Formats: sequence, C-alpha cells, structure tokens
Amino acid sequence: MTTSVEKLALLRAALKHKGINAYIIPFADLHIGENIPDHWRIITWLTGFTGSAATVVITDAFAGFWTDSRYFIQAEKELTGSGFELVKPHAFQLREYTDWLAENLNPGSRIGFDGRIFSIGRFRTLRKKLDGKNIIYNESCDPVSELWFERPPMPSSAAWEHPLEFSGKDRSRKIAEVRDEMIKKGVDFHLLTSPDDIMWLLNIRGNDVSYSPVLLSFALIGIRKFILFVDKSKIPKKLADEFINLGIEMIPYNEIGKHISSLAEGSSILIAPATTSIMLYNSIPKHLKIVKNTCIPSILKSKKNKTEIENISKVMLKDGIALTRFFRWIETNYEIISMTERSVIEKLENFRRDQEGYIGPSFAAIAAFNEHSALPHYSPVQDKDTEIGNSGIFLVDSGGQYLGGTTDITRTISIGLPAPRQKKDFTLVLQGHIKLARAKFPLGTRGYQLDVLARQPMWENGLNYGHGTGHGVGYCLNVHEGPQNISPSDNKAVIEPGMLISNEPAIYREGEYGIRIENLVICYEDEETEFGQFLKFDTVSLCYIDKNLIDKSELNDDEISWINNYHQEVYDKISPYLTEAEKQWLMEKTDKL
Amino acid sequence: MTTSVEKLALLRAALKHKGINAYIIPFADLHIGENIPDHWRIITWLTGFTGSAATVVITDAFAGFWTDSRYFIQAEKELTGSGFELVKPHAFQLREYTDWLAENLNPGSRIGFDGRIFSIGRFRTLRKKLDGKNIIYNESCDPVSELWFERPPMPSSAAWEHPLEFSGKDRSRKIAEVRDEMIKKGVDFHLLTSPDDIMWLLNIRGNDVSYSPVLLSFALIGIRKFILFVDKSKIPKKLADEFINLGIEMIPYNEIGKHISSLAEGSSILIAPATTSIMLYNSIPKHLKIVKNTCIPSILKSKKNKTEIENISKVMLKDGIALTRFFRWIETNYEIISMTERSVIEKLENFRRDQEGYIGPSFAAIAAFNEHSALPHYSPVQDKDTEIGNSGIFLVDSGGQYLGGTTDITRTISIGLPAPRQKKDFTLVLQGHIKLARAKFPLGTRGYQLDVLARQPMWENGLNYGHGTGHGVGYCLNVHEGPQNISPSDNKAVIEPGMLISNEPAIYREGEYGIRIENLVICYEDEETEFGQFLKFDTVSLCYIDKNLIDKSELNDDEISWINNYHQEVYDKISPYLTEAEKQWLMEKTDKL
Repeated sequence: MTTSVEKLALLRAALKHKGINAYIIPFADLHIGENIPDHWRIITWLTGFTGSAATVVITDAFAGFWTDSRYFIQAEKELTGSGFELVKPHAFQLREYTDWLAENLNPGSRIGFDGRIFSIGRFRTLRKKLDGKNIIYNESCDPVSELWFERPPMPSSAAWEHPLEFSGKDRSRKIAEVRDEMIKKGVDFHLLTSPDDIMWLLNIRGNDVSYSPVLLSFALIGIRKFILFVDKSKIPKKLADEFINLGIEMIPYNEIGKHISSLAEGSSILIAPATTSIMLYNSIPKHLKIVKNTCIPSILKSKKNKTEIENISKVMLKDGIALTRFFRWIETNYEIISMTERSVIEKLENFRRDQEGYIGPSFAAIAAFNEHSALPHYSPVQDKDTEIGNSGIFLVDSGGQYLGGTTDITRTISIGLPAPRQKKDFTLVLQGHIKLARAKFPLGTRGYQLDVLARQPMWENGLNYGHGTGHGVGYCLNVHEGPQNISPSDNKAVIEPGMLISNEPAIYREGEYGIRIENLVICYEDEETEFGQFLKFDTVSLCYIDKNLIDKSELNDDEISWINNYHQEVYDKISPYLTEAEKQWLMEKTDKL
Repeated sequence: MTTSVEKLALLRAALKHKGINAYIIPFADLHIGENIPDHWRIITWLTGFTGSAATVVITDAFAGFWTDSRYFIQAEKELTGSGFELVKPHAFQLREYTDWLAENLNPGSRIGFDGRIFSIGRFRTLRKKLDGKNIIYNESCDPVSELWFERPPMPSSAAWEHPLEFSGKDRSRKIAEVRDEMIKKGVDFHLLTSPDDIMWLLNIRGNDVSYSPVLLSFALIGIRKFILFVDKSKIPKKLADEFINLGIEMIPYNEIGKHISSLAEGSSILIAPATTSIMLYNSIPKHLKIVKNTCIPSILKSKKNKTEIENISKVMLKDGIALTRFFRWIETNYEIISMTERSVIEKLENFRRDQEGYIGPSFAAIAAFNEHSALPHYSPVQDKDTEIGNSGIFLVDSGGQYLGGTTDITRTISIGLPAPRQKKDFTLVLQGHIKLARAKFPLGTRGYQLDVLARQPMWENGLNYGHGTGHGVGYCLNVHEGPQNISPSDNKAVIEPGMLISNEPAIYREGEYGIRIENLVICYEDEETEFGQFLKFDTVSLCYIDKNLIDKSELNDDEISWINNYHQEVYDKISPYLTEAEKQWLMEKTDKL
C-alpha cells in the first residue's frame, strides 16, 4: 500500500508538472454535502484522516491540514507520520487555509482545485481573501484521478418510494409549492444540487451513501419542466412511470453540466452557492440571471408537517426503547463481560434493528470511554479498540434512520462512582441543556440569539465548547440539515414552528473526559401577546439522563422539575413496551430527583 | 409657512418634470451619520417628523415614511395631516422601503436620489432588491434645494484641541497606528468620512452639530500624505501650524470630490461603505482598487485607552452627582411646584452644567411621564409640554458630553405608589439588566450572542422590546458609536476589552407606560482558563435604581447582592461630594434591599 508520504510526493510531482503552486482539496463530492461516497473521500485516501470535515492545501514546501475544533485531537493522532501538518488556531485566533494562502503565496501564483467539488461559496471566500495578489486559478485541476488506482466506483443503488403515510404530502403538491415559491421570487429555473432536497421533493429515498438514505442526483425545476439527473437504471419502473406522468424527465447523472450549458429558454435561475460547484456554476449560460439563495426545498422541508411530526414521536419512542435496553445491558453486564467501544456500538445497532421501520445508523456512532469522550467526534478506529473499564465516563452519541424520521441522541453515563468534578461538569451541561429546552422566544428569533442560553452555565465557570449547540435534523434524511441551527455563527435563518433541532451543550476536558447531553426538540407556537407571537421547544428524544452524574444541590426548582417531568414522560411512554425487569430498572433510572 | 402637503405637491411637480417615478430621501448628510446639521434635515423640513432616523419615498400616488419601531408612535402623531403615510410592519413582518419599491414600481422605472447623502451600502441594498426590474437610477437628483427657501446654512464652528490629559495618546502616534493597520491590510489610501473618526485621530473637537462635539470634515490618509478636508477658517492658527508640522495638508471641505477624482498615485483605497456616499464612491478613479471595510479609526477608538478609562470614571462620578441632585429635586418638589417634561430637562441640564468639564447634552434628553414613557425615543415637543402629575411612571434618558467622556443613562422612577404590574415589569427589566451586567464570556464573543441575556426575563413573560440592548459609546464624541453593539442583528464585531457599551433593556406598554434601565459598562479581561481568555463587564454609570419599583420577592440572591453592591458603590463614590441633606437622601435611596 502506498503511504501518505509517498502519495504526497507523487501529487507534488504532478502539481509541479502542471505548474500549480498550491493545490486545494476540499472534503466534498459533486453535491458539496456531508455524506460523500468513498469514491470522493480523497482526503481520507491521501492523509489517513477518517473524520468528515477537512481542507488540505499542498504546496512544494508545505502540506497543511485544516479541520474544525471537534476533530483536532483525532486529526493530530491520525495525521502522525503522514507528512500533513494540522493547522490549529493560535491564541484562540482562527487561521483559515485562506489566511495561510494569503500570507504565504507569492503574487502571480497559480492555485489549482477540482471545480467539480469546489463550491461557489468556497471559491468566493478564497478569491476575496487573495484579492490583489494576481492569482491564476486552475479550476479543473484533478491530479488525484491519475494517482488513485484502486479508487472505489460511484455508488449505484436503486431509488425506493417513501410512502405518503410517512411523507405526509404527495410529490405533486410539493412540486407545486416549490413552483409557487419560484414564481414569488421571480425565477424561471431552480437548480437542486443537494440529494436530500430532491429526495424530500419526490418522496423517494436511495442507498448511495452511508448514513443518509439518498440517491445521488441533481434536479432542474422550471415553471413547467422538471429534469431529474439520475441514471435510469437506478429508478424502478413503477417510480419511473409515475415521474413521467408528472412530467419529470430523466437525464443521465453525468450530463448535468452539458444540459445546463445548453439551456436556451428562461431568464433567471436560482442556485444555492454553498452546495453548487464552480463547474456547474460556470456551465450556466450567460443569458440566465443567476439568483443566489437558499434552496426552496431546503426551507420547506425544514418545517416538518403534521404527519412527519406524528411519525417523529413514534420513532423517538422506538429509539428510546432501544436505548433503554442498551444502557440497561451496559449497566448489568459491564462487570461480567468484556465490552469495547466497538462492540457496544454493534450491540446498540442490534437493539435499534429490532425496531420496526429502522433503516440504519444516521451517522457513525460514537462510543467513547474516558479520555476518548473528550473528542467530540471520536469514533473507535479499526486497528485500535478500547476496553470499557470499571470506572469512568462513557459517552454514547448515536442515531438511527427510520422510515418515520431521523434520530440523534447523546447520553453520558458514569461507570462506577463519578468524581466530584465530573458531577459538577455534568450538572453544568445539564443546566445549559435545560435552559435551551425551556426557552420561550418571539417569532423572528435566529438560532444565534439562543445559543448563549445553553452556553452560559459553562461560561460562568470559565468553560466552553468548540461546536454549535444545535443543528437542524432531517426526516429520514441527513442528520445535519439546514437552513437553521443554534450556534455562535451569524446564520440568518430564523427558528420556525415545525423545525427539528438538536440541543447538545458539552464540556470536553482534553485527556480526561467529555460530557455531552443531546436531545432533539421541535419548535411550536406558544402564546401570542401584544408583543407578538412567541415560540417554544418540545423535547422529543426519550431516554433517561444519568442521575448519578447530577449534583442536585446545584439545580434550582425549575431545573429539578424539568428533569423530573422529563423522566416521568420517558417512563410513561417507554415502560408499556418493556419487560417487568426492564420496567423496574427504568423506574429507578427515572425516579424523582 | 408652506405646509407639508404643499411641499409634497411642489416636490411631486418637480419630480414629474424630471421624469422621476420614485424619489428616495434618507435621513442623512454628506457624512451619512446620525447627528446632522439643520441644513440637511430635509425630512424634518418636509414632513414635520422630529426624530432622527427615517426614509421617505415619494411617488406620484404615494408618500411613504419608514422609521424604526422606537419612533412608531411619535411618527404617527407628527405625520398626521402631512400627506405622508407611516409604513409599519404587518404581522411582525418588516416591510422595508426597498420591499415597497420592489412590489410597486413598474419595470423600467426611474428612481432618483441625492447621491451626496446616499451611502454605498444603502444603494447596494436597494439595487439588489430591485434587481431584474431594469430600473434607471438618477444619482444626482436634488429637487429639494430649489424648493427649500429658508434653508439653514452649513455650520462653521472652529476646531479646538482635545488635550492629551483627556485623549491619552498624541495625534502623531494615532496616525502612525492607522498607517500601520493600512500597511497590514495592504491599502495605500484610507478615506475617512465620519467626523468622529477624524476628531479622535487628530485630538480635536468642534461644534458643528448638536450633541456631538465634531467639526464636519473628511480626511484622506496615505502612507505618507494626509489631507484634511476642512475650510481653513475653521482651524485656529496654533492647530493649523501643528497640522502642517505633521504633514497634514488642509483642502476646502467642498473640494473632497474633485480631489479624490484627481488622485493619480496609489493602487488601493479603503472606504467604509456604510458612511461613504455614492457621490464620493463614484469619484474614486478607476485605477484604484476599492477595499470596503470598517474604518480603521472606528476600530481603534472603540477600545478606550487607560487615560480614557480613568477619565470616564471621573465623568461618571460627575454625572452621578448631577443625577442624584436632579432626582432628589424631583422627589422633594413634585408636590410643591409645577413641573413639566420640558422644565425638568432644563433643570437636569443645569445640574450637569455645574460639573467641571461639561460641554453639553450628548443627545436630546427624554423626560417622559406615563404614556409618553412608552415611546422609546420620545422627546417633549415645542408646542405641547406635559405636566408631571402626582402619580405615575417617569422615565429620564439623558447624557452629557464632558472633556473626559460621554455619558448616557436612563432611570425610570415611580411618582407616588406604583401599581403591581409596574413593579413586575420594572423587576423583569432589572433582571435583564443585571444578567447582562454580570455576563462572563469568552474572547471572540459577538454582541448578538449576549443580547438574549438581557431579553430573556421579558421573553419568558411574553414581553419584548423593539430595539437593541446596547450600543457602543464614544469618548467626548458620538453617543452611538460602532463597530460593536449588543442587539439581535448580525453585527460581526466582537466585544473587546476597553469597549464602552450601553446596557438598556426595556418594556413599553403602548398608551400606558414604559420602563428602561440603562447603565454604561466597560469590557475587561476576566480569568484565562484552558478554555480561553474570558471577559466581563464593569458597570461605570453611577445613579441609584428606584427601589420603590423593585419586587424583591422576584429576585434571586445573586440579583439582590448585585443591586446592593451597586448601590453601595453609588453611595460610597457620590456621597463625599454631597451636602448632609443630600447624603441622607441618597443613603435611603441606596439602602440594602
């Protein structure tokens, strides 16, 4: 097997030959999404990093690796000996790869990248930062294809119908709603590049990538026409017939660029700059005015409909039953049988698989013991599995794809007796979690306004966490879904009724342990007063929170009653599905504080 | 006197003659700032509105008036019979003037405005909204000049030195620091359009506008050259000599456009789009690359230096003494002598004038009784003064310009016994105020992250306020100063040590009363932990908070001790300067809760 160091040397030689001074590799595929097929995991192939967010920059003298703070510790380990250097913030000042390029590239340098996997948004940021340096950009530079011999092929799963009992709205109505919005915005075409938007719109699913049931595809919607870019072999006859009846034309996946560039009608096209590649962007004919905004299906699908919300409740119950059995199995067996981080993930997967409508995990589950739990996105690696000992902090972050929704939940439990500081940290995280769960806020509030609610108990104690507090969650789709989130970044999306969002404050003590408590919440309307319509959250995830780690003396009455009410709800909903022994165990776990 | 209706008719005739379909009038002067000379108060002349934020749009069939929520009630009153219609949000959805134009203008329409008082930022927003409608813009349309006969002349005050004991840093060092930043950013020129930036940089002040001691001027800084655009008659000989020694060239105010357009050297120029007019922007020669960003002096002056912070403390004490005497005077006299909203403002002004180093008010003081206090920016109008009765809510928002700083403080007191709901509202506002005052947060935090701290006690009770929680405050300069603020809007400026910011949550019950509690805070470093450097606020305004309006049973221990400690500090610092009778009165006001 070629090592990272050797691959880097080969890549440098190829770049030298092409006259490229700096080569940028994003972690992306043609859809610029999060879950990418192995075919496009160039960074994993090149560097050995197994996470799912990074940017690599290669020059003659430097091979830099950028990722976000949740991956710092993991990246440092995995990059050892690879020839790649992890660039971390200095004195809490971020230094992005674009900053590095601005400081280190000579005027007139040539930058190369593969424009098929480089988004417009990314290119705009890069060009702005390097403005005035007379940089020459090679937008179709792909030396990797010639070096990666055993590259996995592109996936070829078949589409399947997502029935109306789960979707709650048929595809013709969804298409009509998207067209209504297009008319309101005055655009003739709408290019959809994110497979999850297309899945939602057409009430179909696929199995092309891990963790999200999508079919890799593009779509071009006109006021009358609708083109789905997908290989026909992937669409079963019954679905294909229905598509044809709705006027949906199917054109091969690889012909998207060619088709876009030959568009003759229309005067404007709506695209999402964050998920549209430079290649596709450049293929849009000059006569079309390009309108850049969030995709219409992204906005529509973020607000779950009544059927979806009802199914989410059912799925949360199923997930809660699986989690209850899982944690009971851990607690009653950890002293008896050998458990490792990898083996328990398999066990949890089995418990979930017992539930009707379960499809598979919604992301790579995290089971992290002690110092591993300090790595926000740790996942046990192939060659090194860790035994779960008799004492320590154990964090499990997992989620499932069900026909009726997507789950994502984190629990941190204590194996044996916790140390006082662990209890203190856990209680602070719980307080942050409760503050956000109980929030009441006016219509029009953006996620960044709410983020501090979960963070403040930590801040007061000189603590913090390096990721957002919440992300939108899909419905039998991506576990991370926009446009809304709850984080310090200036995302203009407002939190609206029907949105499903995670609530996951945390504390990570490097080398020691990490604590995170994550539930999903749905936004609802609360009272309307003379000051406007107010909104609230309803916590929908169902699993007990480890009382061994709660320091009750630190909680106020509101917090105590929140946890008692939550535990009562968990018990009431889950217990009817449990055996007597399981019921007894859950009753103790959910007993009043 | 010509009425608003007549002026509107004349204006419409002039616009028809010029072929303009829609004419936009911003509330602005050549510097696009907040305090504008009467010469540029076109909107006041035209509509009768006396506030200081508005936009007017005139078409053949419509005369629309836009302002922010704090002015809604005032504008509705003042616009009655003017022919102008106040456009308010519908169902809490803002409808900006740009939205109105987008919905109502026919494609191919002509929009006119005076490009001298129309900022780049404003034009960019407008053009983006109307994109695709083939609008023709007339950027030098000024029908007002021909109709406004008794227009006040431009001001002509003389500059004066702001001594080093107050500024803390001499002008040559400040200029060097700005040039260092210009070199770091790689720009050859920096255009300063905001007089307060220029005042700070040159350690001078003037008296050209109300409320802010500035001299209307522009500056163009090069790496070696420095041009101050100001009429020479306004610069006393001694100052002019010093400027010449520093290589500062003086060119008449009106020649800025001509001079900029003839710039032959340099390759780039830094401008602030929010405060640079379209006229000036268009005058920049094509060979200069335009870099748009916050002005360097705006960033530097927002972080007060050690001398400034020491002087701010002294000024807060002076202001506190004046306020103590003022509120004591109110309380001991309201049943004896007749008081009106206007007369008490004069009284307060007299108390401030007794203090050394006092220059004048930092904004039009608000003294608002009962339903008037529900108007966030109410100011008693000329022809209608209101008696202060024997029972009710009385809100006083005022500030002073001193050589050693600028103050801005709001107190709401109860005249007679307050109603239970008034106490409840006041206590909620106080809780929000305390939450923000006690905030501890990591370096890198933006104002929008902190806003909810002050707002949450209101939200929990279905209440809210329609303005930001805090604004930056100048130093013997503008009472509203950037780049930082604390508000729901997505301002990217981070809160840094040395910044002076207001903390002013509120509740307004239309037609009944309003409550606002405002202090200024300075940001300091707190502890540094493994999670980074933490920051905190120190409240610097000194004036008791009316205990008659506090419902102690609603406060927790932390809140009670905050108020008791604050009152102790107020008493300890102010009492040495008071008479025995005043001391006794203040002791009661600041007694432990």
